[in-house]
Amino acid sequence: MMKSLKGPAIFLAQFAGDEEPFNTIESISRWAAELGYSGVQIPTWDSLVAVHPAYDHMFDAFAPENVRGNPPARTEWAVNQLMLAARASRNLGLNAHATFSGALMWHTVYPWPQRPAGLVEEGFAELARRWLPILDEFDRQGVDVCYEIHPGEDLHDGITWERFLKAVNGHPRACILYDPSHFLLQQLDYLQFIDIYHERIRMFHVKDAEFNPTGRSGVYGGYQGWVDRPGRFRSPGDGQVDFQGIFSKLAQYGYDGWAVLEWECCIKHPEQGAAEGAPFIAEHMITVTEKAFDDFAGQPPDKQLLRNILGLS
Amino acid sequence: MMKSLKGPAIFLAQFAGDEEPFNTIESISRWAAELGYSGVQIPTWDSLVAVHPAYDHMFDAFAPENVRGNPPARTEWAVNQLMLAARASRNLGLNAHATFSGALMWHTVYPWPQRPAGLVEEGFAELARRWLPILDEFDRQGVDVCYEIHPGEDLHDGITWERFLKAVNGHPRACILYDPSHFLLQQLDYLQFIDIYHERIRMFHVKDAEFNPTGRSGVYGGYQGWVDRPGRFRSPGDGQVDFQGIFSKLAQYGYDGWAVLEWECCIKHPEQGAAEGAPFIAEHMITVTEKAFDDFAGQPPDKQLLRNILGLS
Amino acid sequence: MMKSLKGPAIFLAQFAGDEEPFNTIESISRWAAELGYSGVQIPTWDSLVAVHPAYDHMFDAFAPENVRGNPPARTEWAVNQLMLAARASRNLGLNAHATFSGALMWHTVYPWPQRPAGLVEEGFAELARRWLPILDEFDRQGVDVCYEIHPGEDLHDGITWERFLKAVNGHPRACILYDPSHFLLQQLDYLQFIDIYHERIRMFHVKDAEFNPTGRSGVYGGYQGWVDRPGRFRSPGDGQVDFQGIFSKLAQYGYDGWAVLEWECCIKHPEQGAAEGAPFIAEHMITVTEKAFDDFAGQPPDKQLLRNILGLS
Amino acid sequence: MMKSLKGPAIFLAQFAGDEEPFNTIESISRWAAELGYSGVQIPTWDSLVAVHPAYDHMFDAFAPENVRGNPPARTEWAVNQLMLAARASRNLGLNAHATFSGALMWHTVYPWPQRPAGLVEEGFAELARRWLPILDEFDRQGVDVCYEIHPGEDLHDGITWERFLKAVNGHPRACILYDPSHFLLQQLDYLQFIDIYHERIRMFHVKDAEFNPTGRSGVYGGYQGWVDRPGRFRSPGDGQVDFQGIFSKLAQYGYDGWAVLEWECCIKHPEQGAAEGAPFIAEHMITVTEKAFDDFAGQPPDKQLLRNILGLS
Amino acid sequence: MMKSLKGPAIFLAQFAGDEEPFNTIESISRWAAELGYSGVQIPTWDSLVAVHPAYDHMFDAFAPENVRGNPPARTEWAVNQLMLAARASRNLGLNAHATFSGALMWHTVYPWPQRPAGLVEEGFAELARRWLPILDEFDRQGVDVCYEIHPGEDLHDGITWERFLKAVNGHPRACILYDPSHFLLQQLDYLQFIDIYHERIRMFHVKDAEFNPTGRSGVYGGYQGWVDRPGRFRSPGDGQVDFQGIFSKLAQYGYDGWAVLEWECCIKHPEQGAAEGAPFIAEHMITVTEKAFDDFAGQPPDKQLLRNILGLS
Amino acid sequence: MMKSLKGPAIFLAQFAGDEEPFNTIESISRWAAELGYSGVQIPTWDSLVAVHPAYDHMFDAFAPENVRGNPPARTEWAVNQLMLAARASRNLGLNAHATFSGALMWHTVYPWPQRPAGLVEEGFAELARRWLPILDEFDRQGVDVCYEIHPGEDLHDGITWERFLKAVNGHPRACILYDPSHFLLQQLDYLQFIDIYHERIRMFHVKDAEFNPTGRSGVYGGYQGWVDRPGRFRSPGDGQVDFQGIFSKLAQYGYDGWAVLEWECCIKHPEQGAAEGAPFIAEHMITVTEKAFDDFAGQPPDKQLLRNILGLS
Repeated sequence: MMKSLKGPAIFLAQFAGDEEPFNTIESISRWAAELGYSGVQIPTWDSLVAVHPAYDHMFDAFAPENVRGNPPARTEWAVNQLMLAARASRNLGLNAHATFSGALMWHTVYPWPQRPAGLVEEGFAELARRWLPILDEFDRQGVDVCYEIHPGEDLHDGITWERFLKAVNGHPRACILYDPSHFLLQQLDYLQFIDIYHERIRMFHVKDAEFNPTGRSGVYGGYQGWVDRPGRFRSPGDGQVDFQGIFSKLAQYGYDGWAVLEWECCIKHPEQGAAEGAPFIAEHMITVTEKAFDDFAGQPPDKQLLRNILGLS
Repeated sequence: MMKSLKGPAIFLAQFAGDEEPFNTIESISRWAAELGYSGVQIPTWDSLVAVHPAYDHMFDAFAPENVRGNPPARTEWAVNQLMLAARASRNLGLNAHATFSGALMWHTVYPWPQRPAGLVEEGFAELARRWLPILDEFDRQGVDVCYEIHPGEDLHDGITWERFLKAVNGHPRACILYDPSHFLLQQLDYLQFIDIYHERIRMFHVKDAEFNPTGRSGVYGGYQGWVDRPGRFRSPGDGQVDFQGIFSKLAQYGYDGWAVLEWECCIKHPEQGAAEGAPFIAEHMITVTEKAFDDFAGQPPDKQLLRNILGLS
Repeated sequence: MMKSLKGPAIFLAQFAGDEEPFNTIESISRWAAELGYSGVQIPTWDSLVAVHPAYDHMFDAFAPENVRGNPPARTEWAVNQLMLAARASRNLGLNAHATFSGALMWHTVYPWPQRPAGLVEEGFAELARRWLPILDEFDRQGVDVCYEIHPGEDLHDGITWERFLKAVNGHPRACILYDPSHFLLQQLDYLQFIDIYHERIRMFHVKDAEFNPTGRSGVYGGYQGWVDRPGRFRSPGDGQVDFQGIFSKLAQYGYDGWAVLEWECCIKHPEQGAAEGAPFIAEHMITVTEKAFDDFAGQPPDKQLLRNILGLS
Repeated sequence: MMKSLKGPAIFLAQFAGDEEPFNTIESISRWAAELGYSGVQIPTWDSLVAVHPAYDHMFDAFAPENVRGNPPARTEWAVNQLMLAARASRNLGLNAHATFSGALMWHTVYPWPQRPAGLVEEGFAELARRWLPILDEFDRQGVDVCYEIHPGEDLHDGITWERFLKAVNGHPRACILYDPSHFLLQQLDYLQFIDIYHERIRMFHVKDAEFNPTGRSGVYGGYQGWVDRPGRFRSPGDGQVDFQGIFSKLAQYGYDGWAVLEWECCIKHPEQGAAEGAPFIAEHMITVTEKAFDDFAGQPPDKQLLRNILGLS
Repeated sequence: MMKSLKGPAIFLAQFAGDEEPFNTIESISRWAAELGYSGVQIPTWDSLVAVHPAYDHMFDAFAPENVRGNPPARTEWAVNQLMLAARASRNLGLNAHATFSGALMWHTVYPWPQRPAGLVEEGFAELARRWLPILDEFDRQGVDVCYEIHPGEDLHDGITWERFLKAVNGHPRACILYDPSHFLLQQLDYLQFIDIYHERIRMFHVKDAEFNPTGRSGVYGGYQGWVDRPGRFRSPGDGQVDFQGIFSKLAQYGYDGWAVLEWECCIKHPEQGAAEGAPFIAEHMITVTEKAFDDFAGQPPDKQLLRNILGLS
Repeated sequence: MMKSLKGPAIFLAQFAGDEEPFNTIESISRWAAELGYSGVQIPTWDSLVAVHPAYDHMFDAFAPENVRGNPPARTEWAVNQLMLAARASRNLGLNAHATFSGALMWHTVYPWPQRPAGLVEEGFAELARRWLPILDEFDRQGVDVCYEIHPGEDLHDGITWERFLKAVNGHPRACILYDPSHFLLQQLDYLQFIDIYHERIRMFHVKDAEFNPTGRSGVYGGYQGWVDRPGRFRSPGDGQVDFQGIFSKLAQYGYDGWAVLEWECCIKHPEQGAAEGAPFIAEHMITVTEKAFDDFAGQPPDKQLLRNILGLS
């Protein structure tokens, strides 16, 4: 039987704040429900399992003060957070947890200067060494680990996902959080991505983006801020992502997880984005059909009829 | 070591005739050599292994008189022809033979009226029953059977190729004659086809085509003749096929067979087509490089250097 | 005076069934009205006037048991059904009846193997012989016969429509049921089709489709089922048909027939499709303007003014 | 029998000058022959049959001094020139003469401010009054009048051509000089133009153009000079015109006139343009085939065979 | 602080008439408010500051009877109207007035026949002589003069706008009324236009258009009426203008003027257009965000941290 | 007077080697001349002025052994090399030197994790501190410093070029080496780049590239080697760069430097690439015209004529 996806839900990361109704989980959930959301996704801050030293100073802001400036301690803390998250998820009845892979190789993403032979193999081996114990713990708790495929991370496209999955021996808990905005910004075919990797997609962020290169700047953006870059995030429906195509493919492949709004528009006000997001998702939801037009469903093949049609005696 | 393809060659089917120099194999080969071809492909007429009765009257013209109007005899004759061709190929030192699959299901290619359940499975099973003994004989002779993927045949795209290959249990002699013109006319992505199926491609026809639909007619052509159809064959370079892309992909995957001109233009004179075809193919030939820009080739990985670059102690 | 089209209506073929409210004409009409439809189209099963023997076994399922396996009897039955439909239409106050042309040549739609000289002419002559008495009866009843231009039928594009119309001597009752989904799937320019043939378009099915070819399959579909084919039907708004363009052209040419939803999506549930279809059509409806911006309407030409503007003395 | 076009030829307007070899018809023809041209086209200056007063001051430069500032005399002079050209053409054995229609309405080409009712009808009636005697004289001499379809003239696209042809009652000598550059610059479909109007095309200028609009300027060009306009002429092969498509269509429709280079590039030196033009045209020439792949050529239809294939008894 | 635009408003030119509710400013404003508009724009008829004699007869219809046939008097009247409009605007508390530039050169927009050297410079100098006193008066009243960039006017694209602005020495009151429909019809990049000229855009008309060239006609339209031209105006949302892109860019650049519907569709009824226009604009309105994702907002740069990240000691 | 570019030349970096004729400057130059090149470009290895520590281990391979592992010494060595290169260029009569900017910020090119406020400003300030003395020395020698705009460098697009040029106060010796392959791979509009920055372009590499993203990988390439990446370099003419457009624009803006082949194809053999490169460049060379079609060249403006045309008395 075909299955339909769930939604709309909303990711709270960009909304949580110090003022009513954004300051408590109860009030923010009530706010979301009134806008038409039937689920919320709660952010965690555990994306620090693998950090190259070039980024140490930038990631310290995400860690508690007592581990800042001490990368090994920070990594240990991050791993512990994930182990706790696995158990928390089981206790809350959740079956999937979102995270980042971390990045050891990202600073070499452009293939110049040349990477020495073996660098990529060694990088993924190290990632696997760090993630396998975490994946095993999540497996014990019955929870999937959904890596957000994301530039800046070692897992940033299908190829790196395949390399990682192979490095962790196809671990059954290694899954994907699918966010098309990160694919559009790297001009990856995000619809074909679903055709290839749908079996491991367990989470879905509804986030839009647009890419409008000029004679001044292209995909790298020239160190500009978000609003000035050719590639930038937009509120759902304001960008170039073909969500109709995405929802159709997810329905076709029987994805039955949530469709979660992630708002991060460089132009539109977040509350307008949230208010428009729930009906936007609702309009794209597809209840799948049980009807097929292809054959005389339910009837066993009539061998003689078939041979007649094929022109065989 | 990467390998390069061979060529240019020319398929003689559309040129052989009753007049000098087209009336003997010696004179036509000399004519081809003078135009710059370094190989010729000689047509055979053995594509009658599987014919649906609706087409009996149309295929009889390809068979000798004594089997016309007698489909079982005609099929037996065609199978015998193929058995002889296998041995002839070995004797001539050839390692590949071109053919068509035949068609039992083609009249049902449009999915209306509905096909009864099991029809496609039964059709491919029958095809396999007929082709397996032939494939085995070709295997004994050390010759590949290259099916031209072609509308009108049961093997007309990648999907039907996959079904057939599965039905013959992945027989090692079941291979592909790649002709992009037949893919362009059905709007199949002929470059991606090479990415997916390159391991089985053993022959290559350089034949061009164009598709210019209007408000009057589309892919089906409205029973019009070739010159009036939106989709039609053209001399190489006069159509829409991206041969630069094809030669690049074949070079990248190490295809080392021939590039064979097949001329079948509805507008241009065949002798002009043949004269232009040899330089056209020659300009597209790629001698592959042995240089790589990716890593410090030949050096063994330096583990400590790698760990330094990855930021590991 | 310009005229506007009528709608939304719904074609009941894919909805009628054994369960409430789909089991009686009254209850299903009430269900449709509640969704916002102001008209219904009732299916008939009379598309059996011309069937090539290769399809006999597949069409028998559409005919009553007593004529199955007996093609001449089945054809006679089908013609009678049409004669009755003509009179029924007049009695119900309807002025148009939808049908299929039937197919004698469809199995030769791909121009290989070659069609013998005269085949197409003979085929359309036979079609005309069968349809002329029916068209005359419809003329007596004052009802148009609207052929759905449809792959699998001899009338499957503009060219075949022109051939047929010529074969029936431009019979005034020979008209067109326009369904863009069948045109998109053959990559015919469905907007230009309206420019060319609008005078004979008397019915309009609002049915969507999409075509997404890959390296595995193109327009022929590889004998796959609907959900897996590159070309497939979709709920209105979910596919690639430019309905805004269609409604604009129909309004421009003064089409005043109905816009009838035909739902046949391989993914979305039919009840969701029906619920979304009525507002979808309503949003596309155009009430035509009486204003023109082109000239000083209503004023007779002022010859001297014109000559002044043209610079003539 | 299909016919092939002639060429390459070269239009001398932009080359004639005061210096060797461009100063005599003999030396310039020898120069052209050495570059590979087998024909030349000689410019005339007779495009002054219909001039709106707003352009009087700009066209006077094309007329002899004694008629400048005197529009009626200038028009009379121009008509006389054409009458002489008709006879000169016959004497030289030429069967076509190139000209412009003139323009009475061009200043109103943008439909704002509104044109008063009847303006266009009156304009074409006046054009017909002026051209009919000229067309008749050309008819007496057996020479076609080929109007270059050209912005700035009343005959600037297919619609205005149709209006004019109707106004001169479909005069058999009213023909078309086809120059795709003028169509590309107005974004008219120059390939479809051949499909529609090929029967009247008797001359063909091989002239290229490109259109690259920006945020600063579009089709109107902002009163800039040629090199700065988004739309500008280029040497053949340097612009965006699909000459392969044009030569294919002209061959398909049996055009047997000349392919004449007209060079007017805003960037490239004219002598480089002329040198490259002859081989450019030569490479695009198509000798048409006599072979057809569609049916068993030369055989009379076999009625019983046809009925068998159609499935009729 | 970023600013948001205002709307929806409606331009009354095409709606005012003799019948209720379109015959008084009170009743038409009430009608507009009920449709959801929060502002109205009232048309004036003052676009006669510069008229080339070729158009005298066509513009007289816009002027009062006593100045018709007397171009200098008509121009004087038009200038006076503008002077009055400046004061009226201040009295009504309005800060922007819409107008046309007039046209002295438009009849030479196509660069053939050649324009004599200096023509464009002289034309813009004359325009500046006429407009500078008007601009100064508007400056005294504190009101911007917004020129609608429009074919048929000398200011019809970015290049002519730049020339004019230079001719009036960058007068601070010389501004732009941005209407994308006029840009789409000349294939100018209307999104890039905003990037380049946004600082002078003070008014915005929400008017749609489409351009569908054929083999019969392109951008010039062949003197056809609006409904038959390849380029024509449409109700907002029915054409090809990317309003999402426009509203995004205007929000990004802090445009805080009005979004004013101008309806002028050649197909759809004006009242349907007006009813659909208000929600269409409302759905496109963007309240701008104050959030930035780019840096640790509000924090002063930490020099040492920066040097650490840059790898400087 | 318009100027034309020089060429073809060839960049020797990828050809120099240990075997004849690639092992001496004399023999390799003779080899190049025989292929049709009229100039050579000799590589230097001085791109080490600014290296972020994360790349120290990768750049050491480019430096002499005695400064490896000692970044300050390596930078000093690199600066000295450049000072010597300035003098060497003057001695050789060269007026331009190619180099890279170096990179302090490249590891933060993706804007996540967030860059702290001021990072980009500080980075460019540091770059300017290092480059200003070098630029001054080159100025003393009369030689331009041409930065290759290149991913992996801080100067990788137009925006970063503008920032750098501002940081060095618009130093007159700061120029651009234009290589379109690096722009295509980041989807930057390389034709518009010339429109904007042509005044500073002093060198031009003829290098081709292609970008074919899939569902597996996009612009970042997933750490794959060159042959497998969606974006990869190709021999000139084998990729997607529009060289006709580039040569046209360079000719239009009067670029009179060299067109230098840089071969770095991941598929084609370098000697085939070199052999095809010279005629490829030669075919694209444009000798600029001195003719203009815009006005009556050389004549002084005739004021009264202009006013007549403008309709002024």
